[in-house]
Parts: sequence; C-alpha cells; structure tokens
Amino acid sequence: MDYKAAFRSAVDQIRDEGRYRVFADLKRQRGAFPRASWTRQDGSEREVVVWCSNDYLGQGQNPVVLDAMKAAVDAHGSGSGGTRNISGTNHDHVLLEQELADLHGKDAALLFTSGYVSNEATLSVVQKILPGLIIFSDELNHASMIAGIRNGGGPRKIFKHNDLAHLEELLAAAPADAPKLIAFESVYSMDGDIADIAGTIALAKKYGAMTYLDEVHAVGMYGPRGGGVAEREGLMGDIDIIEGTLGKAFGVMGGYITGDTEVIDAIRLMAAGFIFTTSLPPALVAGSLASVRWLKAHPEVREIHQERAATLKAMFKAAGLPVMENDSHIVPVLVGDPVHCKMISDMLLADHGVYVQPINYPTVPRGTERLRFTPTPFHSDEMMRKLVSAMEALWAHCNVARMGGYAA
Amino acid sequence: MDYKAAFRSAVDQIRDEGRYRVFADLKRQRGAFPRASWTRQDGSEREVVVWCSNDYLGQGQNPVVLDAMKAAVDAHGSGSGGTRNISGTNHDHVLLEQELADLHGKDAALLFTSGYVSNEATLSVVQKILPGLIIFSDELNHASMIAGIRNGGGPRKIFKHNDLAHLEELLAAAPADAPKLIAFESVYSMDGDIADIAGTIALAKKYGAMTYLDEVHAVGMYGPRGGGVAEREGLMGDIDIIEGTLGKAFGVMGGYITGDTEVIDAIRLMAAGFIFTTSLPPALVAGSLASVRWLKAHPEVREIHQERAATLKAMFKAAGLPVMENDSHIVPVLVGDPVHCKMISDMLLADHGVYVQPINYPTVPRGTERLRFTPTPFHSDEMMRKLVSAMEALWAHCNVARMGGYAA
Ligand SMILES: Cc1ncc(COP(=O)(O)O)c(C=O)c1O
Ligand SMILES: Cc1ncc(COP(=O)(O)O)c(C=O)c1O
Repeated sequence: MDYKAAFRSAVDQIRDEGRYRVFADLKRQRGAFPRASWTRQDGSEREVVVWCSNDYLGQGQNPVVLDAMKAAVDAHGSGSGGTRNISGTNHDHVLLEQELADLHGKDAALLFTSGYVSNEATLSVVQKILPGLIIFSDELNHASMIAGIRNGGGPRKIFKHNDLAHLEELLAAAPADAPKLIAFESVYSMDGDIADIAGTIALAKKYGAMTYLDEVHAVGMYGPRGGGVAEREGLMGDIDIIEGTLGKAFGVMGGYITGDTEVIDAIRLMAAGFIFTTSLPPALVAGSLASVRWLKAHPEVREIHQERAATLKAMFKAAGLPVMENDSHIVPVLVGDPVHCKMISDMLLADHGVYVQPINYPTVPRGTERLRFTPTPFHSDEMMRKLVSAMEALWAHCNVARMGGYAA
Repeated sequence: MDYKAAFRSAVDQIRDEGRYRVFADLKRQRGAFPRASWTRQDGSEREVVVWCSNDYLGQGQNPVVLDAMKAAVDAHGSGSGGTRNISGTNHDHVLLEQELADLHGKDAALLFTSGYVSNEATLSVVQKILPGLIIFSDELNHASMIAGIRNGGGPRKIFKHNDLAHLEELLAAAPADAPKLIAFESVYSMDGDIADIAGTIALAKKYGAMTYLDEVHAVGMYGPRGGGVAEREGLMGDIDIIEGTLGKAFGVMGGYITGDTEVIDAIRLMAAGFIFTTSLPPALVAGSLASVRWLKAHPEVREIHQERAATLKAMFKAAGLPVMENDSHIVPVLVGDPVHCKMISDMLLADHGVYVQPINYPTVPRGTERLRFTPTPFHSDEMMRKLVSAMEALWAHCNVARMGGYAA
C-alpha cells in the first residue's frame, strides 16, 4: 500500500481546489502593534500592518500583561509540570478560575488549554452526563463546537443560522421530556453578526432546554466589564454555560467555561480533554489574569475599539467597497470569488504592506469569499486611509464587484 | 427537567466511588525545584517536595528556557494573535518545527497546542485521508489517542498491551488490501514499561501497516539527542509518524508530530484541531526551542536522570516496598486499594511534605492503585532518604502489602 501517495493526493486535491495554504511567516513587534515583520519565502523581510489579528484590543502588547507573564516565569518557571490533577495546578489557575466566574457572574469556571478544547471537551461530555441529550446547534457554529457535538455521539438538530423560528420548529418537534441543549455563539466571527440571545433564552425556557453560549469573539470587548454580549444585554444569569477564550481579546492563550458549581464540577471530573493534558503554564495564566482584570476596569478601550471599526466601515462604504453589514467590530468585505480573494490579499501584502488573510471555502460558503478586517484601537486613521486607497486601486485592477452593482 | 440535579448526581456517583478529585494547589518555586509551596484549603501554606511532576528533567526552571521565554515576551508580546493561517504564525513556529523534524530525523513537523490535541487531531484525520483505514491500538494507549481513534469513526482493533502475538493475530485477520495503522507508545507512563518498537515495526512491514508512535514520556529523555526510545534504538526512520509533547521533559507546553513532508502537509491542511485554534504563544515556542536545543546537547542530564530513578527504585526495594519493575525513569509503587492509596498520599502530603498523587481507577485498572514517583536530576539523596522513611512508616501504619507477601 502506497501511503505516501494517498497523503500526496489529499494535498493535491486541496491544491486543485485553490485551497492550499501557505502561512504568512510573521514576527510580531512588541510596542509597534499592529506592525509586524513578514518573512518572505526567500528569507527577506518587509514591514507590514496586520489587519486580521484576533488580538482585537492589542492586549498582546499591554505591559500589564507582559509584566505579569515575565514575573510568573521568574517566580514559577516555564511549564506547569503536569495535568491539573497530577502536580499541574498552580495557585494562579485557582485565581484565574475565580476571576472568570466573577466576570460572567457565575459560581465557577474551568480552564482548558484552548477555546477549541473547551468547546470540544464540554459539548461531548454533557452528552454522557445527560443521556439522551438532544443538542440544537446553529448551522454556523464554530468547528470546535461541531467537533464536540459530533464526538459525543448523541442526537443533534441543526437550525438555520440565527433563525429562531426554525429553532422553535425543531424544539417543538422533539420529545417534550428529552433533555435538550441549545448551542450558539454571540458574535459570529466571519460575518460579524450577533445572535438574538434574549430570543434564544425565551425558547430555551419555553421548551425546557439548557443554553450553551460561545462568547469567544465577544469576551473582553462587550459589556461594561468585558463579560461579552450577554453581559451587555443583562442576560448572563439566563445562560447555563458561557464559554470563552483567553487567546483573542485577552491576548494570551487558553479557554474556559463558566456556570453553576454542579455543572462545572461534573465537567471537571469527567471531560477527557480537560483531564488528560498538561495544564496551562503559570505565565499564560498570570498574563490572562492580568488581562481580564485590566479589561474589566477599562471600558474606554471597548469604546475606542467600536469607534475604530465603525470608522473603517464608513471609509470602505464611502469608497464604494462592499462591506458586509453587521453590528460588531468585524469588518468583512465581500469579494465573492476565491481566486480574486487570494490575489487581492497577495497583492495587498506584497505591494502595500497590508496583511489580511483571504477567507475562502470551507471557512465560509462558496460565493461569499471575503477579506475580513479587524481594526484594533491601535489602527490609526492614517493606516486606514492607506488601506482604503490600496483596496480601491486593487478593486479597480481586479475588476471586482462594488456596492450597487457587479462589474464585468 | 432538573438539569442541576443530573449534574449533581454525576458528581455524587464519582464521590461514592472514591474518585472525587481535589486538586493540590501548588506554587512552583523557580530555582528551588522540586520544592513548591502547597496552599491548604484553609489558605495556609506549607513547603513540599513534588514527587509526581512530569517536568522530568527540571527544564521548567532551566535559565536557558526561561530567558528565551522572557525575551520572546519582550520581542513579540504575549499571544500569537490568531490561528496559524490567520496571522498566528510567528517565525519561531517555523524554526521550532524545523528543530523538531531534525530531532526525529524527519522531513517535517507540525505543532499543536498540546500533546493531547496532536494525538486527537492526527489520529482522527488520518481516517479521512485513508478511507477504510483500520487502526490497531494498544489497549493501554493514552486517552488522547483513544479519543482521536474513536472520533475518526473508522474501524479499530485493540490489541493486548505490548502483546505482539495478539497484534499479529489481528493484523493477519484483517483484509490484506485494507490500509492499516499501528498506534502505540514507547514508554507507558503509569507502569513505566517500554514497547517492543523493533518487533512492532517488523509486523508493520510484514502486513503493510503504517506506524504511529507516541513518545510523550520519552522525548528529551532517551536517545543520544533526546529523540526518544526510537532514537536510542536507531529506529526513528522506520516509524511513519512520531508524536511528542513540549509539556513534559521539555518543560513548557504544546505538542507535535513529525514525519514525511506529504504526511505532515496533508494533516496540516485537514486536521480541525490544528486549523481552528489560536496557535501557541511566541514565548512558549521560543522556550520550547531553547529547551529542545539545550537537551540535544546535554546527554549527561539523561544519564543523571536514569541514575536517580535507579537509585530510588533500589532504595524502595531495600526497604521492602513493592516497586513495580520496569526499564524506565518511572517509579510506581503498588498499593492495590484506592482508599489506602489516597490515604497514604494525603498523609505523605500533610505530615511529611511529600507530594505524590494517588493513581486510582480509571487511570489504572482496579486493584493496581499505586503511587507513581518521578525522580528528576534535582531530587537529592537526602530527599530520597526522607521519602523512603516516610513511606516505611506509613506502610506499617496502613498495613499495606509489602513485597513478598500481603499483610492482613
Ligand atoms: C467561535 C469560536 N469558538 C472557539 C474558537 C477556538 O478558540 P481558541 O482559539 O482559544 O482555541 C474560535 C477560534 O479560534 C472561534 O472562532
Ligand atoms: C502518553 C501520552 N500522550 C499524550 C499526552 C498528552 O500530552 P500533553 O500533556 O502535552 O497534552 C499524555 C499526557 O498528558 C500522555 O501521557
């Protein structure tokens, strides 16, 4: 059996579909964010402005966070040295879990090595804890939620994206006495649209379902203390499990869930993805703790962030570029074709020092290929002006559709 | 539906089985390893010697590693800011992947956020790349390998632990033309026994199977440059995929696989657990790079490590304590009862400042409950003498079986 050939043909197929990925090789520059140095394949470097980072608030260079990380390295060393149960619980893990529970107004929290693992581990183990559980899942839920739901092996119903009428139809059709869980996100990161959390909660109450909310693209950024969209809307108490990441607006790495003591304790004791892995290093935990605390106390950063996103949207629109409308900090611009999307992105990088990754199928549906910009409080007016004029030039060059009509 | 009650009863059941876990709340002390400060539930602290860390070589406090981490924080900030594809590839990721490929004599390597994720993501996606793949899995494989094998959804055959006759039986019974993969570990961490790698490779060749070897408890510790048991035995070239962790002997956190270019590239492009998650922070990558390089060049640390383990085993044996024999650095002492095991561990901690976690079902089979010691180059003769006399006292007190016969 020629195994190599099978792997090669898997790669070839991806290449044929135009989906082969070459990762942009960057050096982030602390203190100069969102600037970074990009290493070309020939080894030469050029300075670029990063326009697609999920370090949404620039916490990745906040001295409060960096000092906490370095202090933890000095105090405790590099790694945790074990799983949470076998010598890998550092006192900072305990403190960060308390801090996150407080952020979301919950009894308890549980740390995972990533947001991906928190979703996968939790959504699969709840199916063991609640036998017969039916999971109602938004069709655009993140890959990590889908993985958890699938891996649990139980029944699942997929509802149309943010479509409460369809969700209700599915809930009504399920046996009244079956345990149910609705899994959804607050901010969907590719379109930047926001779920109707209140409406979802109302349905959950009507049909006796639990609720699981992924606030990965909202924590740190929404709500008076950065507790997410559910905090902003005063709804945290009505969500059973709120999940988040430490790797995006908080600027570090790691994931977590928060909820009632019983719920969190059962997951702590049973979830394989939590139990059987080395815990987060003290430096990441201390850095995250500093970041969460700092963002709780700095609502003005959230305001500047929203202003920056609104400004970029307005500038793109004024230039006639097809911004996809939404109420969040994410600024997607429709291209609608994978080859154009990749080409524009390559030219922005090589010719204009603008780094924005093309978002193609399967991350988004075919025909909705886009560039997804994430302006942070550190993206200046000047950077935005340069970006918009580069985009205008390329749009003309590549003959891509503008708002109000398609070019040839 | 009373969901809280369902979660509570899941917890109660675990408690009834004596499997409820309270994590020891530690503060690792850089420069004093293996000493740490333990915070009791009442908030008071006491100094303990950690005897169950998987920071096997004490790299968690190697200044070379810590300096690299702090320098990376200063240069690049805290997090990577994105997935590998969307702004999250830092130049150090590229360098570390080259270093790990070199460590194992392979073309290429791929980083994951943990060893758990590397196993889960790889073993599930190979089932997509090779439709109809039958995975032959050692019955004692780690939970993360089992998760990946299960989640892939394809056929699997479980062979008796390290039993090549049984493996051959299963291989011979499978269709000759079906793609096959044998998944096993080098050092099994709970018993400390070592697989017959050469024998497994011979069977793989005879029956046309690929081989997947988890060297998580061997990398950094075995082989002239720390490439693992397969390096020591000159067999790395005959293993298709070698998997390892950065979180144990390398002292940081993260996981990886190494193999042929085509194999690694296909997994890079297709594995959900690799694609859809924030990449490792620059500090962890730089720290790991420093650690791997340093351990490549310091074989004497591996020698001291083996000597320390052999010395502790000899001391336990001389005291008549039931060490479970093996050829590795792991020193398990059989207790054979979950209640005794937990009690001895609690008393060692509270009365003797010895921290060793009890290993009970389901981590090990019932009746084989044990204490698992992992002496490092930093565990002194004096620490060992204190440990052995504490163990002797408790063994007498708890009336546990000694070698050569069971007490009442
Ligand atoms: C909605 C959503 N949930 C979870 C994750 C995973 O979080 P993490 O990057 O911390 O693994 C992501 C992105 O990575 C995401 O977009
Ligand atoms: C054999 C084995 N493989 C994989 C893992 C997971 O590695 P990591 O801790 O890096 O997630 C572990 C332990 O945690 C292990 O014992």
